Amino acid sequence: MTWPQGVRSAGVAAGIKPAGDLDLGLIVTEQPVEWAGTFTRNAAAAAPVLWCKGRIGSAVRAIVVNSGNANACTGAEGVLAVERATDAAAVQVGCSPTEVLVASTGPIGIPLPVERIESNLAHAFDSLVEDPEPFARSIITTDTHTKVVRAAAGDATVVGVAKGAAMLAPNMATMLAFIVTDAAPSEGTLQPALTDAVRVSFDRISVDACESTNDSVFLLATGKHAVVPDVLSRAVTTVCRELAEMMVRDAEGGSKFVRILVTGATDDHAAAALGKAVAASALWRAAVNGGDPNWGRVLSALGSHDRSLVLDNMTVAIGAETVFDKGQPIGSLDGARKAMDVDEFELSCVVGHGSGAAEVLSCDLSTDYVRLNADGST
Amino acid sequence: MTWPQGVRSAGVAAGIKPAGDLDLGLIVTEQPVEWAGTFTRNAAAAAPVLWCKGRIGSAVRAIVVNSGNANACTGAEGVLAVERATDAAAVQVGCSPTEVLVASTGPIGIPLPVERIESNLAHAFDSLVEDPEPFARSIITTDTHTKVVRAAAGDATVVGVAKGAAMLAPNMATMLAFIVTDAAPSEGTLQPALTDAVRVSFDRISVDACESTNDSVFLLATGKHAVVPDVLSRAVTTVCRELAEMMVRDAEGGSKFVRILVTGATDDHAAAALGKAVAASALWRAAVNGGDPNWGRVLSALGSHDRSLVLDNMTVAIGAETVFDKGQPIGSLDGARKAMDVDEFELSCVVGHGSGAAEVLSCDLSTDYVRLNADGST
Repeated sequence: MTWPQGVRSAGVAAGIKPAGDLDLGLIVTEQPVEWAGTFTRNAAAAAPVLWCKGRIGSAVRAIVVNSGNANACTGAEGVLAVERATDAAAVQVGCSPTEVLVASTGPIGIPLPVERIESNLAHAFDSLVEDPEPFARSIITTDTHTKVVRAAAGDATVVGVAKGAAMLAPNMATMLAFIVTDAAPSEGTLQPALTDAVRVSFDRISVDACESTNDSVFLLATGKHAVVPDVLSRAVTTVCRELAEMMVRDAEGGSKFVRILVTGATDDHAAAALGKAVAASALWRAAVNGGDPNWGRVLSALGSHDRSLVLDNMTVAIGAETVFDKGQPIGSLDGARKAMDVDEFELSCVVGHGSGAAEVLSCDLSTDYVRLNADGST
Repeated sequence: MTWPQGVRSAGVAAGIKPAGDLDLGLIVTEQPVEWAGTFTRNAAAAAPVLWCKGRIGSAVRAIVVNSGNANACTGAEGVLAVERATDAAAVQVGCSPTEVLVASTGPIGIPLPVERIESNLAHAFDSLVEDPEPFARSIITTDTHTKVVRAAAGDATVVGVAKGAAMLAPNMATMLAFIVTDAAPSEGTLQPALTDAVRVSFDRISVDACESTNDSVFLLATGKHAVVPDVLSRAVTTVCRELAEMMVRDAEGGSKFVRILVTGATDDHAAAALGKAVAASALWRAAVNGGDPNWGRVLSALGSHDRSLVLDNMTVAIGAETVFDKGQPIGSLDGARKAMDVDEFELSCVVGHGSGAAEVLSCDLSTDYVRLNADGST
């Protein structure tokens, strides 16, 4: 796999992570390119997120990414660190610092050792290659593998690289995705394509219901190939969905992958919110971990999220086994238990008579998750 | 400890729980008495909750309580089971079934073996005593001890009995509290006294952020002693607060008790909601379990709940150690770690310049919690 033409990336070890792992990533484009972005809405958004939001609407040449430190809740020093990192990248690339985006992931509240970024950017620049793999390695934290996806969009291609979803691991607190296309989007269509894609992909996964201070998704378009807006939009959605699913499947401590399908809601947004309420239930997630078909916890999570739901209009099925139908418990718990005794299953919830539907991807709550997140250092 | 005069209770084993433990409780008053109640707002509220809500405003003589089965999401059969239980109690007490309240706690979605209640109510009636202890034992699930509290209200007393908070244990899904006073409340003051008390007590605790289908708080007033409304209200609040704190301290799997104090919010309600957002964070709770002063997870939870917060107006302290002050990380992590290395500590969060404040009682997330809730049968 390679990036679209005109884009290269690198991943090097800058000593931000303790173990000498790759922790500094760099993406560089040949020319200034149009970009779109979606970011965490957390009020505690990190300094790099605030910097990138300020760059929306202007062309970019590079993205500097570090793992091992979130540069979040780091005050004035954190803002300065972003400026120093973008200054250093601009020198290497030969562009303005305002043409450099930046993203960070790692523990919150620790000063970013930005001098390690400054002193290693020349090495990163010298290491640029068309293969996204070294970059993909440099941004992961406790992901067990890199996440790279490609989709065609007419004559153009869309390539996306991402790291783990939600707050998966000790002090690791972010999902990051970097998507590049050589499509030439029609005016005003790039940001909507990304926003729509994120809404049905990264916004529909939940590992622990914790929203990071650093979540960022970038979409760069080099503009080589004219593409029908719908075709580009579909390809971007495909890439986002595949990356999102890879994240949940690789969730730290997760042993089961659960597709929560909610139908019959007032609209798709309400359906997604209900699915996420189930995905956030510690009790349901613990039951999934143990293979216990405790569907009462599903109804309890749904009914707590939307107090206007009516049990008589609701149906729940675990795999193919319907366990609750229009207000009445039915079916076989043994059948449901068997349906859960696999690596992956679907939980389907009919919540009413509306036309809203959504699929939310989720995982179980394991003792490993607790141990991993209890033991970190800040 | 005894109930106020004119009130007796019993706890017997009816075979609803598998182990032969006490599982059927009965409270009986000499005369019909005024009562107030607060109930879960879950749309999946259990049949006994719906029954009790229908009795609001009319006097009562008895409350039948079972543990070992929630009688929730049990459809038409569950409604019938409530009717049969109240009919059976009415026969024993010599009153109308509409003068009988009912509460259940246990697994959701399993038909209630109501015939075991019917066949054991005579024994329960014969066992009535002034000591609330057998009743208190009959309503607990995996609570490690009974919870009985008493407060004076002028010439009257207020006695409360409760069982475990939130969804603490395998398939156990409820907090129940039964409070009795011999005060004679002024007209229209009993329900407000309870509602106000619940808002600053049971509404300000969180074990796992899961709202049960069965949560119920009852306040009965036998009307023997005239009491100033404020005095009664304060005594009821004291009893509710003490019971609530006992619940969190006895949270299943919990090893640390954390007082989350939020100040500077726009109002007390907003402060409580922010405190509960922190209490609900799986990541912060896991960090508490490990004694890791990961205050970034606190800011992330606050900022995710209220996106209008401004870091520069926020301060976080763990015990006496301020770790974040008006936008800047400060203080000693070792000091914070030491402050957490105890059974109980305070997390204080200044979130702005408002006058709203609230204390939320919470606990950690442990591997025991996951194991206990993974292993149950539905």
